[in-house]
Amino acid sequence: KYLKIFYDAQFGYNYRDEGAGADGTEDTNEFNFRRNRIGFIGTYNRMVSFYFQTEYIEDKQVGPLTTDLSDEEKNFYVLDAQVRFKFSNAFHIRLGKFKHNLTRENLEGCFEPLTMDRSLFVYAPFKTSRDKGVVFWGNLFDNIFQYRFDVMEGKTSGDPSPKSNFRYTGRIHLTFLDPEKSYGYKGTYLGKKKVLTIGASYQYEPDAVYDDVANATGEKDYQAYSVDGFFEYPFSFGTVTLSSAYLKVDFDDAYKGADPDDEVIGLHGERDGYYVKAGYMFPMNIGPGKLQLFYRFDNFSFGKYGNFYDQEIKWYGVGFNYYIYGQNLKITGQYSKTDFDKEDNTDPDYQDFKTFQLFLQVRL
Amino acid sequence: KYLKIFYDAQFGYNYRDEGAGADGTEDTNEFNFRRNRIGFIGTYNRMVSFYFQTEYIEDKQVGPLTTDLSDEEKNFYVLDAQVRFKFSNAFHIRLGKFKHNLTRENLEGCFEPLTMDRSLFVYAPFKTSRDKGVVFWGNLFDNIFQYRFDVMEGKTSGDPSPKSNFRYTGRIHLTFLDPEKSYGYKGTYLGKKKVLTIGASYQYEPDAVYDDVANATGEKDYQAYSVDGFFEYPFSFGTVTLSSAYLKVDFDDAYKGADPDDEVIGLHGERDGYYVKAGYMFPMNIGPGKLQLFYRFDNFSFGKYGNFYDQEIKWYGVGFNYYIYGQNLKITGQYSKTDFDKEDNTDPDYQDFKTFQLFLQVRL
Amino acid sequence: KYLKIFYDAQFGYNYRDEGAGADGTEDTNEFNFRRNRIGFIGTYNRMVSFYFQTEYIEDKQVGPLTTDLSDEEKNFYVLDAQVRFKFSNAFHIRLGKFKHNLTRENLEGCFEPLTMDRSLFVYAPFKTSRDKGVVFWGNLFDNIFQYRFDVMEGKTSGDPSPKSNFRYTGRIHLTFLDPEKSYGYKGTYLGKKKVLTIGASYQYEPDAVYDDVANATGEKDYQAYSVDGFFEYPFSFGTVTLSSAYLKVDFDDAYKGADPDDEVIGLHGERDGYYVKAGYMFPMNIGPGKLQLFYRFDNFSFGKYGNFYDQEIKWYGVGFNYYIYGQNLKITGQYSKTDFDKEDNTDPDYQDFKTFQLFLQVRL
Repeated sequence: KYLKIFYDAQFGYNYRDEGAGADGTEDTNEFNFRRNRIGFIGTYNRMVSFYFQTEYIEDKQVGPLTTDLSDEEKNFYVLDAQVRFKFSNAFHIRLGKFKHNLTRENLEGCFEPLTMDRSLFVYAPFKTSRDKGVVFWGNLFDNIFQYRFDVMEGKTSGDPSPKSNFRYTGRIHLTFLDPEKSYGYKGTYLGKKKVLTIGASYQYEPDAVYDDVANATGEKDYQAYSVDGFFEYPFSFGTVTLSSAYLKVDFDDAYKGADPDDEVIGLHGERDGYYVKAGYMFPMNIGPGKLQLFYRFDNFSFGKYGNFYDQEIKWYGVGFNYYIYGQNLKITGQYSKTDFDKEDNTDPDYQDFKTFQLFLQVRL
Repeated sequence: KYLKIFYDAQFGYNYRDEGAGADGTEDTNEFNFRRNRIGFIGTYNRMVSFYFQTEYIEDKQVGPLTTDLSDEEKNFYVLDAQVRFKFSNAFHIRLGKFKHNLTRENLEGCFEPLTMDRSLFVYAPFKTSRDKGVVFWGNLFDNIFQYRFDVMEGKTSGDPSPKSNFRYTGRIHLTFLDPEKSYGYKGTYLGKKKVLTIGASYQYEPDAVYDDVANATGEKDYQAYSVDGFFEYPFSFGTVTLSSAYLKVDFDDAYKGADPDDEVIGLHGERDGYYVKAGYMFPMNIGPGKLQLFYRFDNFSFGKYGNFYDQEIKWYGVGFNYYIYGQNLKITGQYSKTDFDKEDNTDPDYQDFKTFQLFLQVRL
Repeated sequence: KYLKIFYDAQFGYNYRDEGAGADGTEDTNEFNFRRNRIGFIGTYNRMVSFYFQTEYIEDKQVGPLTTDLSDEEKNFYVLDAQVRFKFSNAFHIRLGKFKHNLTRENLEGCFEPLTMDRSLFVYAPFKTSRDKGVVFWGNLFDNIFQYRFDVMEGKTSGDPSPKSNFRYTGRIHLTFLDPEKSYGYKGTYLGKKKVLTIGASYQYEPDAVYDDVANATGEKDYQAYSVDGFFEYPFSFGTVTLSSAYLKVDFDDAYKGADPDDEVIGLHGERDGYYVKAGYMFPMNIGPGKLQLFYRFDNFSFGKYGNFYDQEIKWYGVGFNYYIYGQNLKITGQYSKTDFDKEDNTDPDYQDFKTFQLFLQVRL
């Protein structure tokens, strides 16, 4: 019976080549936290444990796809609050607030990514990353096979929905070499593990939205699926990481409706696409730490994004991680380009832009 | 000089037979925290100690008397922040934010109730459960007599009030057999104590409200009183618990005014009524834990509730507590019926409804 | 590698001779926290450490210069979240959210002031006390000389600004006798140190505001400077404390513009003025603790404050600190008078008023 407190933060500098000034075309410079978390892990006995984590972010300016210079938002909230029951390696139950299981990258630890962060485009609609509910999961067949099944809140929008249904997610993976057998994945194992994992997920909520909210008609189901692969191997010439996933989010074309629910359009709405990411870590120390280079490419098509139907966004990023004390003290730099297939000349947020980020990660 | 951190949570499933869908008549299903608290108890020396407790609730849907499917609310706030001075068993001072003393049930620990929770109808107006101020209290005559006197903020509404007065509360009890001598009561002692306590409270704030806010006229005092009894006894055939209280909240009929202050109407406004609750705990273990069955009935009359004057609400509940590790790991189920004397056909929140709740309680 | 949790609070009673009632002319009485903080200090190794601190305030009524009886505001936020690197006594780096370096009093610890609190008039525009960024600082020449240089966010207002520039602050001091060599100063050392320090600061943000926001014209720089002195000496007849500072905040007369940015007017806008404060602590115990008497006078001139141009505010305060366990358990009482050169007969917040405050400070 013990309780361990932790503090994890990512603090640094964001630059974007637009967003500031009266017309939004001046460069934006920002110091901010990317993550700023305090929480604890508690163990009641061999079967029951707890995980609780808070997040505090204020005045976020350089967002994933938009730049916002207002200074109103201050958010202190609870990210995770879980009770975990481990009956055996083959059967765990987790209750409370935690990550759902739609995509592998959502399940990769926020402080152990390969690139600066996960894809901007793989978040689920409604509760994008974390939700409240229950999950059953476990590892079978010498840990080669993992299953997960969660039942969670899903949509709770104030826009009227046809029903108050739960959202269901199933996920399986096959993992070879050194197995990935935890609930959380990592974006890189820093060459300490040999990993080859392929996975598939499916998520479903019946009667989730109306495509005509004003008239409360046009009930549509929500469904999404994803397939993904991850490979990392510490070769003598360095550690190589390769990972990719495909995601399709489907509301049965609800975005074409007369007055579609807000949730079906935009970044988290109806879409499909994929990401690929690759990393290379030098085998020897360079200065006091280890250097890892990375590249990432995302390509997603949206039913409706901003004022455009059938928008396509491409995202390119290159950068490095410099691990001074592993993930406990790390510097990450990333340069990225966001490319809109259709641009809106009146709003710099819907025009191509470039972003540079330099962050320090600390974990205590 | 030490500091002990704790985490207490109640997580589970809520069902109500209305609330969802475009017209609010579909069933509502929800996973959520009922309570989600982290805090600490600190001791500076034998005389001075501290208690600090936070609460985090988001997107609460199935509320006590209403169902709200919007997903805007995220609240992280401090429930308790107290400095406690113990001069002797007969004289304590507590400063800061803590529970006022109007009703016994408000003072029963949130993680040690007999039924799913306390009565929905025994909260005070203004600061319903906790407030800021100072309390003097102590036990006299071999702990048979307890007194409490608090001075707290009371009304601070943005609606103009006649004065910025404090609210005063006094409470006494007589407790026989094993005395209840703490500031907090419990809803059940799980058969570990033999208890018979009767108490009475009175609360007062002069010039608290206007009955005509628009014209700033009609100054009314606030006063309330409550009497209560609690009995628990571990018989050979099982532990029996019986408890009841009567509460009257009075604003001198301010709800009949031309433009009464919001605080005098509705759930926390002018009203009177009572609850009775009864429990029975089996003497032997049933499976790995102890089983307790409970029943509760509330009957309250409101000056004005919703659009109706002289509304009466009856509330019936039955359920069980299953104690696996006492109050540290407990499952509670409750089925309840809410009955409005006068119904509003246009709003399901003002029609009879049924609620089922199944919750896990954990304390670390 | 360790982590130490702390809890610091100031709780008490506020009285003001206006603010309540329908026309704001009734007396206001309030129990509240002045500060209510929980946080931790963490040490990763000899070079790297952490400081994290939260604040929770709700329903603040008796504010520095205004009285607000609404009960809407509940704020739980992170005040400090810093990573500290100590390379040597002569060179430290601090990243994250922390206090900028414009005035000495802003850098004096919130739980170690001489008077009830610091001056109401020495806060910077934009991020008044704490901001996000990086600071380089150190002590040189046997700790007689200290330098600080920070680069921080500065203005991020939703009002359009000409540019998204950072704010730069430099500060130096000379400190004789027992040197002040930490990042934080104290308002009194309780006679345990002999201190004589003089300092000077300068702060700058280019193209910070428009003086005509509607037309996005009239770009103005922001600059401010301050000079300050502090003296404390434990004489045989008691400990004497004397301190004073001058501050000038300049937006190049932007408040005279056609539609000036909100930030250039009011309490934190264009102004200049000074404070003097003095303390005397008796050498012997008086009862169980030590008694310190204090006096303070502030005089500031504002470009525009409320509806008046060239407003001048004088502030007088007298009071005492009674240290039972030093700063860990302290009672502070203060009576103050706020004097407006030009009064607004329609709003009691812009008329002279008196305030009395009696607070308990506890630190665990």
